[in-house]
Amino acid sequence: MSNNEDAGVVDGRRLRSERSRLAIIEAALALQEEGILVPTAKQISDRAGVGMRSFFRHFEDMGALFEAADNQIRDSYEVLFLGGNRGGMLADRIDRAVERHADAYESVKNVVLGTQAQLWRYDILRKNYGRNQRGLRRDLEDWLPELKSVSGETREAVDAIASFEMWNRLRYHQGLSKKSSINILKGLLKSMIDGDRAGS
Amino acid sequence: MSNNEDAGVVDGRRLRSERSRLAIIEAALALQEEGILVPTAKQISDRAGVGMRSFFRHFEDMGALFEAADNQIRDSYEVLFLGGNRGGMLADRIDRAVERHADAYESVKNVVLGTQAQLWRYDILRKNYGRNQRGLRRDLEDWLPELKSVSGETREAVDAIASFEMWNRLRYHQGLSKKSSINILKGLLKSMIDGDRAGS
Repeated sequence: MSNNEDAGVVDGRRLRSERSRLAIIEAALALQEEGILVPTAKQISDRAGVGMRSFFRHFEDMGALFEAADNQIRDSYEVLFLGGNRGGMLADRIDRAVERHADAYESVKNVVLGTQAQLWRYDILRKNYGRNQRGLRRDLEDWLPELKSVSGETREAVDAIASFEMWNRLRYHQGLSKKSSINILKGLLKSMIDGDRAGS
Repeated sequence: MSNNEDAGVVDGRRLRSERSRLAIIEAALALQEEGILVPTAKQISDRAGVGMRSFFRHFEDMGALFEAADNQIRDSYEVLFLGGNRGGMLADRIDRAVERHADAYESVKNVVLGTQAQLWRYDILRKNYGRNQRGLRRDLEDWLPELKSVSGETREAVDAIASFEMWNRLRYHQGLSKKSSINILKGLLKSMIDGDRAGS
Protein backbone atom coordinates (compact mmCIF):
# COMPACT_ATOMS: atom_id res chain seq x y z
CA MET A 1 0.00 0.00 0.00
CA SER A 2 2.76 2.40 0.97
CA ASN A 3 4.36 2.16 -2.49
CA ASN A 4 1.04 2.79 -4.19
CA GLU A 5 0.40 5.78 -1.94
CA ASP A 6 3.83 7.21 -2.82
CA ALA A 7 3.07 6.73 -6.48
CA GLY A 8 -0.23 8.53 -5.96
CA VAL A 9 1.54 11.48 -4.36
CA VAL A 10 4.06 11.66 -7.18
CA ASP A 11 1.33 11.46 -9.82
CA GLY A 12 -0.61 14.19 -8.03
CA ARG A 13 2.44 16.41 -7.98
CA ARG A 14 3.17 15.78 -11.62
CA LEU A 15 -0.42 16.58 -12.51
CA ARG A 16 -0.37 19.85 -10.56
CA SER A 17 2.94 20.77 -12.15
CA GLU A 18 1.58 20.10 -15.63
CA ARG A 19 -1.54 22.09 -14.82
CA SER A 20 0.46 25.11 -13.69
CA ARG A 21 2.65 24.85 -16.81
CA LEU A 22 -0.46 24.97 -19.00
CA ALA A 23 -1.92 27.81 -16.95
CA ILE A 24 1.23 29.84 -17.61
CA ILE A 25 1.07 29.20 -21.36
CA GLU A 26 -2.63 30.04 -21.49
CA ALA A 27 -2.08 33.23 -19.49
CA ALA A 28 0.63 34.36 -21.93
CA LEU A 29 -1.63 33.74 -24.93
CA ALA A 30 -4.61 35.45 -23.26
CA LEU A 31 -2.53 38.56 -22.52
CA GLN A 32 -1.32 38.68 -26.13
CA GLU A 33 -4.87 38.37 -27.42
CA GLU A 34 -5.88 41.27 -25.19
CA GLY A 35 -3.19 43.42 -26.78
CA ILE A 36 -0.24 43.03 -24.41
CA LEU A 37 1.82 41.66 -27.26
CA VAL A 38 4.97 41.06 -25.24
CA PRO A 39 3.85 40.23 -21.69
CA THR A 40 6.44 40.09 -18.90
CA ALA A 41 7.08 37.12 -16.60
CA LYS A 42 5.41 39.09 -13.78
CA GLN A 43 2.27 39.83 -15.80
CA ILE A 44 1.99 36.21 -16.89
CA SER A 45 2.55 34.75 -13.41
CA ASP A 46 -0.03 37.11 -11.91
CA ARG A 47 -2.58 36.14 -14.56
CA ALA A 48 -1.85 32.41 -14.16
CA GLY A 49 -2.03 32.63 -10.37
CA VAL A 50 1.44 31.13 -9.88
CA GLY A 51 4.56 32.58 -8.25
CA MET A 52 7.56 33.82 -10.20
CA ARG A 53 9.61 30.91 -8.81
CA SER A 54 7.14 28.46 -10.26
CA PHE A 55 7.23 30.36 -13.56
CA PHE A 56 10.99 30.03 -13.89
CA ARG A 57 10.94 26.40 -12.71
CA HIS A 58 8.79 25.64 -15.75
CA PHE A 59 10.48 28.00 -18.21
CA GLU A 60 14.14 28.87 -17.86
CA ASP A 61 13.63 32.12 -19.76
CA MET A 62 10.99 34.01 -21.75
CA GLY A 63 12.20 32.43 -24.98
CA ALA A 64 11.33 28.97 -23.62
CA LEU A 65 7.86 30.17 -22.69
CA PHE A 66 7.15 31.78 -26.07
CA GLU A 67 8.38 28.64 -27.82
CA ALA A 68 6.02 26.49 -25.70
CA ALA A 69 3.13 28.85 -26.46
CA ASP A 70 3.95 28.66 -30.17
CA ASN A 71 3.91 24.85 -30.05
CA GLN A 72 0.70 24.84 -28.04
CA ILE A 73 -1.27 26.83 -30.59
CA ARG A 74 0.30 25.66 -33.85
CA ASP A 75 -2.20 22.87 -34.47
CA SER A 76 -5.26 25.02 -33.87
CA TYR A 77 -3.83 27.78 -36.09
CA GLU A 78 -2.95 25.47 -38.94
CA VAL A 79 -6.56 24.26 -38.96
CA LEU A 80 -7.70 27.82 -39.74
CA PHE A 81 -5.95 27.65 -43.10
CA LEU A 82 -6.88 24.09 -44.06
CA GLY A 83 -9.93 22.85 -45.92
CA GLY A 84 -12.37 24.90 -47.97
CA ASN A 85 -13.69 24.12 -51.43
CA ARG A 86 -10.55 24.05 -53.54
CA GLY A 87 -12.14 23.11 -56.87
CA GLY A 88 -13.45 25.22 -59.75
CA MET A 89 -12.20 28.14 -61.82
CA LEU A 90 -9.02 30.02 -60.91
CA ALA A 91 -10.88 33.27 -60.10
CA ASP A 92 -13.23 31.47 -57.70
CA ARG A 93 -10.37 29.68 -55.97
CA ILE A 94 -8.50 32.97 -55.55
CA ASP A 95 -11.64 34.49 -53.99
CA ARG A 96 -12.07 31.62 -51.53
CA ALA A 97 -8.38 31.40 -50.62
CA VAL A 98 -8.20 35.16 -49.92
CA GLU A 99 -11.36 35.02 -47.77
CA ARG A 100 -10.05 32.06 -45.80
CA HIS A 101 -6.69 33.75 -45.25
CA ALA A 102 -8.45 36.91 -44.15
CA ASP A 103 -10.45 35.07 -41.48
CA ALA A 104 -7.37 33.21 -40.30
CA TYR A 105 -5.17 36.32 -40.15
CA GLU A 106 -7.82 38.20 -38.19
CA SER A 107 -7.97 35.37 -35.63
CA VAL A 108 -4.24 35.06 -35.10
CA LYS A 109 -3.36 38.73 -35.49
CA ASN A 110 -2.19 39.61 -31.99
CA VAL A 111 -0.28 36.41 -31.40
CA VAL A 112 1.53 36.81 -34.74
CA LEU A 113 2.33 40.45 -33.97
CA GLY A 114 3.62 39.36 -30.56
CA THR A 115 5.87 36.80 -32.24
CA GLN A 116 7.08 39.34 -34.81
CA ALA A 117 7.96 41.81 -32.06
CA GLN A 118 10.33 39.20 -30.65
CA LEU A 119 11.80 37.59 -33.75
CA TRP A 120 14.97 39.64 -33.35
CA ARG A 121 15.51 38.15 -29.89
CA TYR A 122 14.87 34.40 -30.22
CA ASP A 123 16.32 32.00 -32.78
CA ILE A 124 13.60 29.46 -32.13
CA LEU A 125 10.83 31.94 -32.96
CA ARG A 126 12.57 32.85 -36.23
CA LYS A 127 12.88 29.16 -37.08
CA ASN A 128 9.21 28.45 -36.33
CA TYR A 129 8.04 31.57 -38.15
CA GLY A 130 10.01 30.54 -41.24
CA ARG A 131 8.51 27.06 -41.11
CA ASN A 132 4.99 28.52 -40.85
CA GLN A 133 5.67 30.73 -43.87
CA ARG A 134 6.80 27.73 -45.92
CA GLY A 135 3.66 25.87 -44.87
CA LEU A 136 1.42 28.74 -46.02
CA ARG A 137 3.30 28.91 -49.31
CA ARG A 138 2.64 25.22 -49.97
CA ASP A 139 -1.00 25.63 -48.92
CA LEU A 140 -1.50 28.47 -51.43
CA GLU A 141 -0.11 26.22 -54.19
CA ASP A 142 -2.66 23.65 -53.16
CA TRP A 143 -5.40 26.27 -53.71
CA LEU A 144 -3.79 27.58 -56.90
CA PRO A 145 -1.70 24.92 -58.69
CA GLU A 146 -1.32 27.52 -61.46
CA LEU A 147 1.37 29.07 -59.25
CA LYS A 148 3.69 26.18 -60.09
CA SER A 149 4.07 27.48 -63.65
CA VAL A 150 4.41 31.25 -63.13
CA SER A 151 7.78 33.04 -63.25
CA GLY A 152 9.96 33.10 -60.15
CA GLU A 153 9.33 36.81 -59.62
CA THR A 154 5.57 36.47 -59.96
CA ARG A 155 5.66 33.56 -57.50
CA GLU A 156 7.51 35.69 -54.92
CA ALA A 157 5.21 38.65 -55.50
CA VAL A 158 2.18 36.41 -54.92
CA ASP A 159 3.71 35.10 -51.72
CA ALA A 160 4.24 38.65 -50.42
CA ILE A 161 0.76 39.82 -51.44
CA ALA A 162 -0.91 36.81 -49.79
CA SER A 163 1.10 37.26 -46.57
CA PHE A 164 0.12 38.29 -43.06
CA GLU A 165 2.48 41.27 -43.41
CA MET A 166 0.50 42.62 -46.40
CA TRP A 167 -2.79 41.94 -44.62
CA ASN A 168 -1.65 43.79 -41.52
CA ARG A 169 -0.32 46.68 -43.60
CA LEU A 170 -3.75 47.18 -45.26
CA ARG A 171 -5.82 46.63 -42.13
CA TYR A 172 -3.73 48.25 -39.43
CA HIS A 173 -1.36 50.76 -41.00
CA GLN A 174 -3.76 51.91 -43.75
CA GLY A 175 -6.89 51.44 -41.62
CA LEU A 176 -8.87 49.66 -44.36
CA SER A 177 -11.94 47.52 -43.66
CA LYS A 178 -11.76 43.75 -43.91
CA LYS A 179 -13.96 43.93 -47.02
CA SER A 180 -11.79 46.50 -48.84
CA SER A 181 -8.63 44.61 -47.94
CA ILE A 182 -10.10 41.38 -49.32
CA ASN A 183 -11.13 43.14 -52.56
CA ILE A 184 -7.68 44.62 -53.02
CA LEU A 185 -5.97 41.26 -52.56
CA LYS A 186 -8.37 39.43 -54.88
CA GLY A 187 -7.81 42.05 -57.60
CA LEU A 188 -4.03 41.98 -57.23
CA LEU A 189 -3.73 38.19 -57.28
CA LYS A 190 -6.02 37.81 -60.29
CA SER A 191 -4.22 40.40 -62.39
CA MET A 192 -0.80 39.07 -61.40
CA ILE A 193 -1.54 35.43 -62.19
CA ASP A 194 -3.49 36.23 -65.38
CA GLY A 195 -0.81 38.69 -66.50
CA ASP A 196 1.97 36.18 -65.95
CA ARG A 197 0.12 33.43 -67.86
CA ALA A 198 -0.73 35.79 -70.74
CA GLY A 199 2.90 36.90 -70.95
CA SER A 200 4.47 33.43 -70.85
CA MET B 1 31.97 88.50 -10.47
CA SER B 2 30.33 86.02 -8.17
CA ASN B 3 27.09 86.13 -10.23
CA ASN B 4 28.97 85.51 -13.46
CA GLU B 5 30.80 82.57 -11.93
CA ASP B 6 27.50 81.06 -10.78
CA ALA B 7 26.11 81.48 -14.27
CA GLY B 8 29.17 79.72 -15.66
CA VAL B 9 28.66 76.79 -13.29
CA VAL B 10 24.98 76.53 -14.26
CA ASP B 11 25.80 76.69 -18.00
CA GLY B 12 28.44 74.01 -17.54
CA ARG B 13 25.95 71.76 -15.77
CA ARG B 14 23.33 72.34 -18.41
CA LEU B 15 25.83 71.51 -21.13
CA ARG B 16 26.91 68.30 -19.42
CA SER B 17 23.29 67.35 -18.88
CA GLU B 18 22.44 67.95 -22.54
CA ARG B 19 25.51 65.97 -23.58
CA SER B 20 24.50 62.99 -21.46
CA ARG B 21 20.95 63.18 -22.83
CA LEU B 22 22.29 63.04 -26.39
CA ALA B 23 24.69 60.23 -25.46
CA ILE B 24 21.71 58.18 -24.20
CA ILE B 25 19.73 58.76 -27.40
CA GLU B 26 22.74 57.91 -29.56
CA ALA B 27 23.41 54.75 -27.56
CA ALA B 28 19.82 53.59 -28.03
CA LEU B 29 20.00 54.15 -31.80
CA ALA B 30 23.41 52.46 -32.05
CA LEU B 31 22.13 49.38 -30.22
CA GLN B 32 19.10 49.19 -32.52
CA GLU B 33 21.31 49.49 -35.59
CA GLU B 34 23.42 46.61 -34.26
CA GLY B 35 20.31 44.44 -34.04
CA ILE B 36 19.21 44.88 -30.42
CA LEU B 37 15.89 46.20 -31.66
CA VAL B 38 14.42 46.85 -28.21
CA PRO B 39 17.34 47.73 -25.92
CA THR B 40 16.77 47.94 -22.16
CA ALA B 41 17.51 50.95 -19.94
CA LYS B 42 20.48 49.02 -18.53
CA GLN B 43 21.95 48.24 -21.96
CA ILE B 44 21.53 51.84 -23.08
CA SER B 45 23.02 53.36 -19.89
CA ASP B 46 26.03 51.03 -20.09
CA ARG B 47 26.65 51.94 -23.71
CA ALA B 48 26.23 55.67 -23.04
CA GLY B 49 28.50 55.52 -19.98
CA VAL B 50 25.90 57.04 -17.66
CA GLY B 51 24.24 55.63 -14.54
CA MET B 52 20.67 54.35 -14.44
CA ARG B 53 19.74 57.31 -12.19
CA SER B 54 20.96 59.72 -14.81
CA PHE B 55 19.05 57.77 -17.47
CA PHE B 56 15.75 58.10 -15.64
CA ARG B 57 16.43 61.74 -14.74
CA HIS B 58 16.50 62.46 -18.48
CA PHE B 59 13.73 60.06 -19.51
CA GLU B 60 10.91 59.20 -17.17
CA ASP B 61 10.29 55.92 -18.97
CA MET B 62 11.37 53.99 -22.05
CA GLY B 63 8.53 55.53 -24.07
CA ALA B 64 9.98 59.01 -23.49
CA LEU B 65 13.38 57.80 -24.65
CA PHE B 66 12.09 56.14 -27.82
CA GLU B 67 10.07 59.26 -28.62
CA ALA B 68 13.19 61.42 -28.24
CA ALA B 69 15.17 59.04 -30.45
CA ASP B 70 12.42 59.17 -33.06
CA ASN B 71 12.49 62.99 -33.05
CA GLN B 72 16.28 63.01 -33.17
CA ILE B 73 16.48 60.97 -36.37
CA ARG B 74 13.35 62.09 -38.21
CA ASP B 75 15.05 64.87 -40.18
CA SER B 76 17.94 62.71 -41.34
CA TYR B 77 15.53 59.92 -42.33
CA GLU B 78 13.20 62.18 -44.24
CA VAL B 79 16.15 63.37 -46.31
CA LEU B 80 16.69 59.80 -47.53
CA PHE B 81 13.34 59.92 -49.32
CA LEU B 82 13.56 63.46 -50.70
CA GLY B 83 15.03 64.67 -53.98
CA GLY B 84 15.91 62.57 -57.00
CA ASN B 85 15.05 63.30 -60.61
CA ARG B 86 11.26 63.34 -60.59
CA GLY B 87 10.70 64.22 -64.23
CA GLY B 88 10.19 62.07 -67.32
CA MET B 89 7.99 59.13 -68.31
CA LEU B 90 5.88 57.26 -65.73
CA ALA B 91 7.89 54.04 -66.05
CA ASP B 92 11.18 55.86 -65.44
CA ARG B 93 9.78 57.68 -62.43
CA ILE B 94 8.49 54.40 -60.97
CA ASP B 95 11.97 52.91 -61.42
CA ARG B 96 13.68 55.81 -59.69
CA ALA B 97 11.15 56.06 -56.85
CA VAL B 98 11.42 52.31 -56.11
CA GLU B 99 15.23 52.47 -56.12
CA ARG B 100 15.24 55.47 -53.80
CA HIS B 101 12.79 53.80 -51.42
CA ALA B 102 14.88 50.65 -51.46
CA ASP B 103 18.03 52.52 -50.41
CA ALA B 104 16.14 54.42 -47.72
CA TYR B 105 14.41 51.31 -46.33
CA GLU B 106 17.72 49.46 -46.16
CA SER B 107 19.28 52.32 -44.17
CA VAL B 108 16.49 52.66 -41.64
CA LYS B 109 15.56 48.98 -41.40
CA ASN B 110 16.56 48.17 -37.83
CA VAL B 111 15.28 51.38 -36.33
CA VAL B 112 11.91 50.94 -38.06
CA LEU B 113 11.70 47.31 -36.92
CA GLY B 114 12.53 48.44 -33.38
CA THR B 115 9.73 50.99 -33.55
CA GLN B 116 7.30 48.42 -34.95
CA ALA B 117 8.12 45.99 -32.15
CA GLN B 118 6.94 48.64 -29.70
CA LEU B 119 3.98 50.22 -31.45
CA TRP B 120 1.59 48.19 -29.29
CA ARG B 121 3.07 49.74 -26.16
CA TYR B 122 3.40 53.48 -26.85
CA ASP B 123 0.75 55.85 -28.19
CA ILE B 124 3.33 58.39 -29.22
CA LEU B 125 5.19 55.88 -31.42
CA ARG B 126 1.92 54.94 -33.14
CA LYS B 127 1.17 58.60 -33.72
CA ASN B 128 4.62 59.32 -35.17
CA TYR B 129 4.59 56.16 -37.30
CA GLY B 130 1.21 57.15 -38.75
CA ARG B 131 2.51 60.63 -39.56
CA ASN B 132 5.58 59.17 -41.30
CA GLN B 133 3.34 56.90 -43.38
CA ARG B 134 1.22 59.86 -44.48
CA GLY B 135 4.41 61.73 -45.40
CA LEU B 136 5.62 58.83 -47.56
CA ARG B 137 2.25 58.61 -49.22
CA ARG B 138 2.38 62.29 -50.21
CA ASP B 139 5.97 61.87 -51.38
CA LEU B 140 5.00 59.00 -53.69
CA GLU B 141 2.28 61.22 -55.22
CA ASP B 142 4.96 63.79 -55.84
CA TRP B 143 6.93 61.16 -57.79
CA LEU B 144 3.81 59.80 -59.50
CA PRO B 145 1.06 62.44 -59.85
CA GLU B 146 -0.81 59.79 -61.90
CA LEU B 147 -1.78 58.29 -58.52
CA LYS B 148 -4.18 61.18 -57.96
CA SER B 149 -6.48 59.83 -60.66
CA VAL B 150 -6.44 56.08 -59.99
CA SER B 151 -9.29 54.30 -58.17
CA GLY B 152 -9.36 54.28 -54.38
CA GLU B 153 -8.51 50.58 -54.23
CA THR B 154 -5.60 50.91 -56.63
CA ARG B 155 -4.30 53.85 -54.60
CA GLU B 156 -4.37 51.78 -51.40
CA ALA B 157 -2.80 48.78 -53.11
CA VAL B 158 0.02 51.02 -54.38
CA ASP B 159 0.55 52.39 -50.88
CA ALA B 160 0.88 48.86 -49.46
CA ILE B 161 3.19 47.65 -52.24
CA ALA B 162 5.47 50.69 -51.86
CA SER B 163 5.62 50.30 -48.08
CA PHE B 164 8.41 49.31 -45.71
CA GLU B 165 6.28 46.34 -44.62
CA MET B 166 6.25 44.94 -48.18
CA TRP B 167 9.97 45.62 -48.57
CA ASN B 168 10.77 43.83 -45.33
CA ARG B 169 8.53 40.92 -46.27
CA LEU B 170 10.43 40.38 -49.57
CA ARG B 171 13.90 40.98 -48.15
CA TYR B 172 13.68 39.40 -44.73
CA HIS B 173 10.86 36.87 -44.65
CA GLN B 174 11.31 35.67 -48.26
CA GLY B 175 15.08 36.17 -48.27
CA LEU B 176 15.18 37.89 -51.68
CA SER B 177 18.09 40.02 -52.86
CA LYS B 178 17.78 43.78 -53.02
CA LYS B 179 17.86 43.56 -56.82
CA SER B 180 15.05 40.96 -57.05
CA SER B 181 12.93 42.89 -54.58
CA ILE B 182 13.36 46.08 -56.59
CA ASN B 183 12.40 44.28 -59.82
CA ILE B 184 9.28 42.80 -58.23
CA LEU B 185 8.12 46.17 -56.94
CA LYS B 186 8.78 47.95 -60.24
CA GLY B 187 6.79 45.30 -62.12
CA LEU B 188 3.88 45.39 -59.69
CA LEU B 189 3.59 49.17 -59.62
CA LYS B 190 3.80 49.50 -63.41
CA SER B 191 1.14 46.89 -64.10
CA MET B 192 -1.15 48.26 -61.36
CA ILE B 193 -1.00 51.87 -62.49
CA ASP B 194 -1.18 51.00 -66.21
CA GLY B 195 -4.02 48.54 -65.58
CA ASP B 196 -6.00 51.09 -63.60
CA ARG B 197 -5.58 53.78 -66.28
CA ALA B 198 -6.49 51.38 -69.09
CA GLY B 199 -9.61 50.30 -67.21
CA SER B 200 -10.84 53.77 -66.27
